[in-house]
Amino acid sequence: MINIAQRVHDHQWKIDPIVRSVLDTDFYKLLMAQSVFRNRREARVEFSLINRSDAVPLARLIDEGELREQLDHVRSLSLTRGESTWLRGNTFYGKRWMFTPDFMQWLEGFRFPDYHLERRGDQYELTFEGPWMEAMMWEIPALAILMELRSRAVLRDMGKFELQILYARAMSRVWEKIERLQKLPDLAVADFGARRRHSFLWQDWCVQAMIEGLGRRFTGTSNCLIAMRQDIEAIGTNAHELPMVYCALAGEDDAALAAAPYQVLEEWQKDYDGNLRIVLPDTIGSKGFFANAPEWIARWTGVRVDSGDPFDAAEAAIAFWQRHGQDVSQKRIIFSDGLDIELIEALHARYADRVKVSYGWGTLLTNDFRGLAPDDRLAPFSLVCKAVSADGHPCVKLSDNPNKATGPAEEIARYKRVFGVGEQAARDVVV
Amino acid sequence: MINIAQRVHDHQWKIDPIVRSVLDTDFYKLLMAQSVFRNRREARVEFSLINRSDAVPLARLIDEGELREQLDHVRSLSLTRGESTWLRGNTFYGKRWMFTPDFMQWLEGFRFPDYHLERRGDQYELTFEGPWMEAMMWEIPALAILMELRSRAVLRDMGKFELQILYARAMSRVWEKIERLQKLPDLAVADFGARRRHSFLWQDWCVQAMIEGLGRRFTGTSNCLIAMRQDIEAIGTNAHELPMVYCALAGEDDAALAAAPYQVLEEWQKDYDGNLRIVLPDTIGSKGFFANAPEWIARWTGVRVDSGDPFDAAEAAIAFWQRHGQDVSQKRIIFSDGLDIELIEALHARYADRVKVSYGWGTLLTNDFRGLAPDDRLAPFSLVCKAVSADGHPCVKLSDNPNKATGPAEEIARYKRVFGVGEQAARDVVV
Repeated sequence: MINIAQRVHDHQWKIDPIVRSVLDTDFYKLLMAQSVFRNRREARVEFSLINRSDAVPLARLIDEGELREQLDHVRSLSLTRGESTWLRGNTFYGKRWMFTPDFMQWLEGFRFPDYHLERRGDQYELTFEGPWMEAMMWEIPALAILMELRSRAVLRDMGKFELQILYARAMSRVWEKIERLQKLPDLAVADFGARRRHSFLWQDWCVQAMIEGLGRRFTGTSNCLIAMRQDIEAIGTNAHELPMVYCALAGEDDAALAAAPYQVLEEWQKDYDGNLRIVLPDTIGSKGFFANAPEWIARWTGVRVDSGDPFDAAEAAIAFWQRHGQDVSQKRIIFSDGLDIELIEALHARYADRVKVSYGWGTLLTNDFRGLAPDDRLAPFSLVCKAVSADGHPCVKLSDNPNKATGPAEEIARYKRVFGVGEQAARDVVV
Repeated sequence: MINIAQRVHDHQWKIDPIVRSVLDTDFYKLLMAQSVFRNRREARVEFSLINRSDAVPLARLIDEGELREQLDHVRSLSLTRGESTWLRGNTFYGKRWMFTPDFMQWLEGFRFPDYHLERRGDQYELTFEGPWMEAMMWEIPALAILMELRSRAVLRDMGKFELQILYARAMSRVWEKIERLQKLPDLAVADFGARRRHSFLWQDWCVQAMIEGLGRRFTGTSNCLIAMRQDIEAIGTNAHELPMVYCALAGEDDAALAAAPYQVLEEWQKDYDGNLRIVLPDTIGSKGFFANAPEWIARWTGVRVDSGDPFDAAEAAIAFWQRHGQDVSQKRIIFSDGLDIELIEALHARYADRVKVSYGWGTLLTNDFRGLAPDDRLAPFSLVCKAVSADGHPCVKLSDNPNKATGPAEEIARYKRVFGVGEQAARDVVV
């Protein structure tokens, strides 16, 4: 029995929008936006898309018109009443009223600012400029749109049957990983895969698989929309952009630059506490960060490890806590860089007994289509959207992996000097 | 948009019928029925279900009421006008008018005869008695119903998500086998998996996968209904029941018994020619069959290998043809016993250059759910429906594997003597 009404409705769609809600973004964006709203409302920041995988010629794969339609659709979005109610009324990390009425009022009025899009060879230049708290909102939707348009470009060449096999294989693969996760004692793993997901529906499916397979050991998702719909926890804290912009705003004064990464955390802890007091030390190089960190940072809940060798990074955090007389067993390390099942297993074997560990599993949860399409055309790739300047000053991220560093060379050199970064080992960036 | 009409319609079904068409059966049943219709219209035969896998307690898994409902539904079926048109007008093996008008008239009036069902411990006794050409029609529907009711009994305990993973894995598995088949030169493979399929929909899916993945190297399906719907070839020739019943009808006269397996082929070749002249030698043991076979049988198109060691059986057929001065490279061997991808590859490597080979791939195409459900409760098992008596005389199948032999012990001994069957190697029967 054909559902004629459904069919007629379907073929009236002009586009199939990828991002359909202001909440289809990472939870930490909202937390950070609120912090910016309070502390740096006047800053203007430019964000830029960076495709670290040259081999993926985005501008040849994705039609510019289609990309504009998707970006324009995002500009038509605003927070719905139900979404606002959820943000206002929900408990996040066990805390009510995480978002203040003035911030909520701002968010309800928020519209995505304009974008700048230009083809440059086989790549797109896509930038967002404006008040920091507006421009920053583009990061996740922009990445998700480019990733999904790339998926669609490849999927368009596949037949109905091939598609069925493709998803059957991808589902089997995710489920096999989950079955391996089931064997890990005291596991706590969250989905961090919104930005580089294969597609929205696929991220949603992966989250349902995690719920089904892991129960409470699956602690939630970074994606607010999926968290709301599936009635699970929204997960996230803060990201590199906070110290990056604070550092840029410090201008050319080296002492101010050196203080900025700690200043941002001081302001953060006024805004948030508990699980949200998670340090992300690698923005300026973890080694220098820990060496110069004031004692009160050692009392924070934990550290997120997002670049470099994760074992080295974990040891550095543990050494930092020990140096400050902290009970390491009560500290949390959140691993979130390039995780896949093997690495999670190895990290868990090494750290589960020593500290509280959790995993923010991203691209290889929500986009592991490696080897599933001809010429590996659906393999995930390394696309990021980074702050590039703030009030006219360039933004820099050093990272613990020089292949993940961003910013002009001379500024990177200055940051390395100011933050005491010596030799760094380069690691391939897969996702 | 909910399709309310569809939903209301769906919940009005009393049962979800497994067999919904007279044509949901193997093509060879119709060819054999027509031969019986011409040559042995008066014979009365009893068929019986035999579960060779004691470990599967069918009567505990399957509710007797549900089983009766399904069997009763089959008794309500008759050939539809479109089905009749297809059988009358279609080309089978390149030949028009395969079925004569008088047989078609009989088939249009055909209704399934009554069945006898009784629980015996953990198993069911299920028998069909009547004119041979009526009772024989039960074989495939009866098997398919029991197999699918067993699947349903297991699937009933699984959640929506588990089911999704189950089929994703099963699909991935079938497709991986097909990808391996794609590598075999000059492949000709058909689906013979109707009888022990996981379910009708699953067989239908497997056939579509074979069409998609193998194109013309997939030569067709034994299932008439699926052949008609998918517009592909219906495949099949003849089965053990023909010589078994002819032998039984020979009564106690040893000379008549010895002649029966050849007499049936003599009548068959009057009815059919070309691809249909395929010998199934193992009913009375291949060794004796070839030793005593008249020369004209060596001129037939080929041999179907359905028990014993398939390499030994193929060598025996090749030796038979060579002894009679036949061009072996023009002969066809159809392998149809317990095939899976590894065995097909091994047989192909050995025989593809020496003879024309083809494969009738059955249970491990349409029911390979091994290892996919807890306690392997969806693994296929060895269920058959065999002729047990004809006009009051017991039916015997010797087979080249004593584990597949059927019939009373004293009659088996007599047949072995008459047909010169010596030592036989027992092989496990998986499916």
